[in-house]
Amino acid sequence: MRLSRYFLPILKEAPKEAEIVSHRLMLRAGMMRQQNAGIYSWLPLGLKVLKKIEAVVREEQDRSGAVEILMPSIQPADLWRESGRYDAYGKEMLRIVDRHEREMLYGPTAEEVVTDIFRTYVRSYRDLPLNLYNIQWKFRDEVRPRFGVMRGREFLMKDAYSFDVDQAGALRAYHKMFVAYLRTYKRLGLTAIPMRADTGPIGGKLSHEFIILASTGESAVFCDKDLLDLPVPGEDVDFEGDLSPVVDMFTSRYAATDEMHDEAAFAALPEERRVSARGIEVGHIFSFGTKYSEPMGAKVAMPDGSEQPVIMGSYGIGVSRLIGAIIEASHDDAGIIWPESVAPFGAGVISLRPDDAAVTAACEDAYAKLSAAGKDPLYDDTAARPGAKFASMDLIGLPWQIIIGPKGLADGVVELKRRATGDKELVSLESAIARVTEKA
Amino acid sequence: MRLSRYFLPILKEAPKEAEIVSHRLMLRAGMMRQQNAGIYSWLPLGLKVLKKIEAVVREEQDRSGAVEILMPSIQPADLWRESGRYDAYGKEMLRIVDRHEREMLYGPTAEEVVTDIFRTYVRSYRDLPLNLYNIQWKFRDEVRPRFGVMRGREFLMKDAYSFDVDQAGALRAYHKMFVAYLRTYKRLGLTAIPMRADTGPIGGKLSHEFIILASTGESAVFCDKDLLDLPVPGEDVDFEGDLSPVVDMFTSRYAATDEMHDEAAFAALPEERRVSARGIEVGHIFSFGTKYSEPMGAKVAMPDGSEQPVIMGSYGIGVSRLIGAIIEASHDDAGIIWPESVAPFGAGVISLRPDDAAVTAACEDAYAKLSAAGKDPLYDDTAARPGAKFASMDLIGLPWQIIIGPKGLADGVVELKRRATGDKELVSLESAIARVTEKA
Repeated sequence: MRLSRYFLPILKEAPKEAEIVSHRLMLRAGMMRQQNAGIYSWLPLGLKVLKKIEAVVREEQDRSGAVEILMPSIQPADLWRESGRYDAYGKEMLRIVDRHEREMLYGPTAEEVVTDIFRTYVRSYRDLPLNLYNIQWKFRDEVRPRFGVMRGREFLMKDAYSFDVDQAGALRAYHKMFVAYLRTYKRLGLTAIPMRADTGPIGGKLSHEFIILASTGESAVFCDKDLLDLPVPGEDVDFEGDLSPVVDMFTSRYAATDEMHDEAAFAALPEERRVSARGIEVGHIFSFGTKYSEPMGAKVAMPDGSEQPVIMGSYGIGVSRLIGAIIEASHDDAGIIWPESVAPFGAGVISLRPDDAAVTAACEDAYAKLSAAGKDPLYDDTAARPGAKFASMDLIGLPWQIIIGPKGLADGVVELKRRATGDKELVSLESAIARVTEKA
Repeated sequence: MRLSRYFLPILKEAPKEAEIVSHRLMLRAGMMRQQNAGIYSWLPLGLKVLKKIEAVVREEQDRSGAVEILMPSIQPADLWRESGRYDAYGKEMLRIVDRHEREMLYGPTAEEVVTDIFRTYVRSYRDLPLNLYNIQWKFRDEVRPRFGVMRGREFLMKDAYSFDVDQAGALRAYHKMFVAYLRTYKRLGLTAIPMRADTGPIGGKLSHEFIILASTGESAVFCDKDLLDLPVPGEDVDFEGDLSPVVDMFTSRYAATDEMHDEAAFAALPEERRVSARGIEVGHIFSFGTKYSEPMGAKVAMPDGSEQPVIMGSYGIGVSRLIGAIIEASHDDAGIIWPESVAPFGAGVISLRPDDAAVTAACEDAYAKLSAAGKDPLYDDTAARPGAKFASMDLIGLPWQIIIGPKGLADGVVELKRRATGDKELVSLESAIARVTEKA
């Protein structure tokens, strides 16, 4: 993309309302604009990152065997009356009445809708196991939205729902999502720790939150330091095989959120392994049995001819919130440092003199070659001052920068900068392109 | 995808509520489920098609130079008060009040929000031209939703918004979208005719609807038969060049919707060129000048230092509605016939005897080779009867079917079926795979 044809409204000053670094940087980098408390427009740079995160989440859901659907944002109130949650959900639910006085709501989650889909079509144990997921906008009418995408009202969530005939199957489904989540966060450059968690309004007994450690985290968390370095399964992991050794490895170490914390168990750890920190929740998984299938009549015929309510679980990842979490985990004073997997562009090409024919020719050459190599470069071809260009490029945090000016070209070199380390090298244009495009 | 691990709930009977063929076929093929009047869950097959259409729309918007953003579904009422449309819009607007009694709405379109984004960041004529688009769910509270996705309440729309300093620039922006739309429909296998149209609540003077001819269309349309065969620009079209010859070629022939129809002009055509038919609107473009920028104060500094309201246009494609339009245009008694560009899977592999080792080996071979070639096959590995498998595969309308059974294998052949023509051939498995994977 040529910057002259793009829409990247960089702000020089951090807006006052932004209290945490990810919120400040997302506003300054022109990633989003608040339209209403906790409701954002995604500007081009922010949307690109959002879509990259969404793609990683989708790939790992697909790999685990979950099947994608898309449920509507507006749901009928009657379904929530069937489950008993309509009155119980409280003011976080955005309630709506249509022109015919029908009661509806903007879905904060979708257990009811997916259970309705299931009971409409599925009749037999033969059709199980089944895991249906969707990546859809949700709305929770937070009393005090803040921290940008970390606690917004309209937010993008991946929510999956598993259906099994028995507890053993339900546990396998839970393990699949557990491992899919570990892989997802790893690919996003995050170290997420599964912690036993309270189940809240979703219900059920077995639940884990996936937590990133960050000083701006919303809650206190406690865990065994060993958890920070455990290996995450590779992409060859067999989701049809036994995943319990992986799950056991993570769950046998102490890790708990505030609500579930057991001080005595934590104190039993050697002192150097006790991590007491703040955490950001980036996922939450639940196994809740027949909480929805029983009242909503979602049953399957069993081999012996009997009918039985299906055993369910639900599994959420806050896709838009992950952008904030990644920035909290990866930034410096100059701006964002994107992991390669979600960087909005693979590299930046900075022209120091757009009015110089040799510089422009070299920039166009780099732009064409990086594009052809699939690196999707952002080419700053504008007339802005070099200092402003450097600051903007550091702020938006692309992994590489190739800086091209007349002096260097006269010596046969360009500057190659690695954003994460700040390392700069003077190399030939060909070498710079080769470095940026080489496989990791 | 192996059908045994997929979720494809085929219905034997068309539900009564479905009045038109696309609605019937989408329900029978397990593409979607109605959750509420005019509000649907997208089941896996339907979602795959929706995403393919969305991808084509996105590619052509990008090619034309438009830049993607994403505006929220929930918009503040105050912005609509600024433009004067909040009270004028009527009951089709879904109005919402949040927990703090703030008035909001589910966006039926986004002129106000995008104008707000523009005025926040853009100050100078130097930043123009600019075209921002988004592909986002919209809600229109239709008094009588029907015809499935053709007149739903929650629907997916691509809406683009252009910003220019003068009328000449605005016309270039209009021409770019005009040509991008022609290319989009062509790639979707549709013949869409641009027709002069009424501007309705969006406002402005210059407007075209893009119309598909179909007997189930919602309105009467009139056009010159020549329009059905005009050439559409290829992907090498220069969007920075002069597009007016293309636009003139289409707009110089008679074509009008009911509201704009001029019987005298139509009657002047030779009788054999007069097409009087029903049409389905699949897109609508508007040039409306300063209708929003003036009241909302979206101005740019001009070269002479003066400030001037920006000239705008908006451009919509009903992405979810297009699925219905494509099915209306491409089906037979047995079911849907997808154009290759949007087929949910590239080919079907049908095992006639999943309990036969040789058949299974051949099916697995076909499945692996088609997958490796990027054809994303659907492999019916279930225990259903052959007749049911044939009917389902015809119903869901994949371009190719490879049917593998023990008798054929004994003779060294499989059956290759082309869904569009119904042509069947007995060929070797290798030939069948070669035919399916060869470039069109």
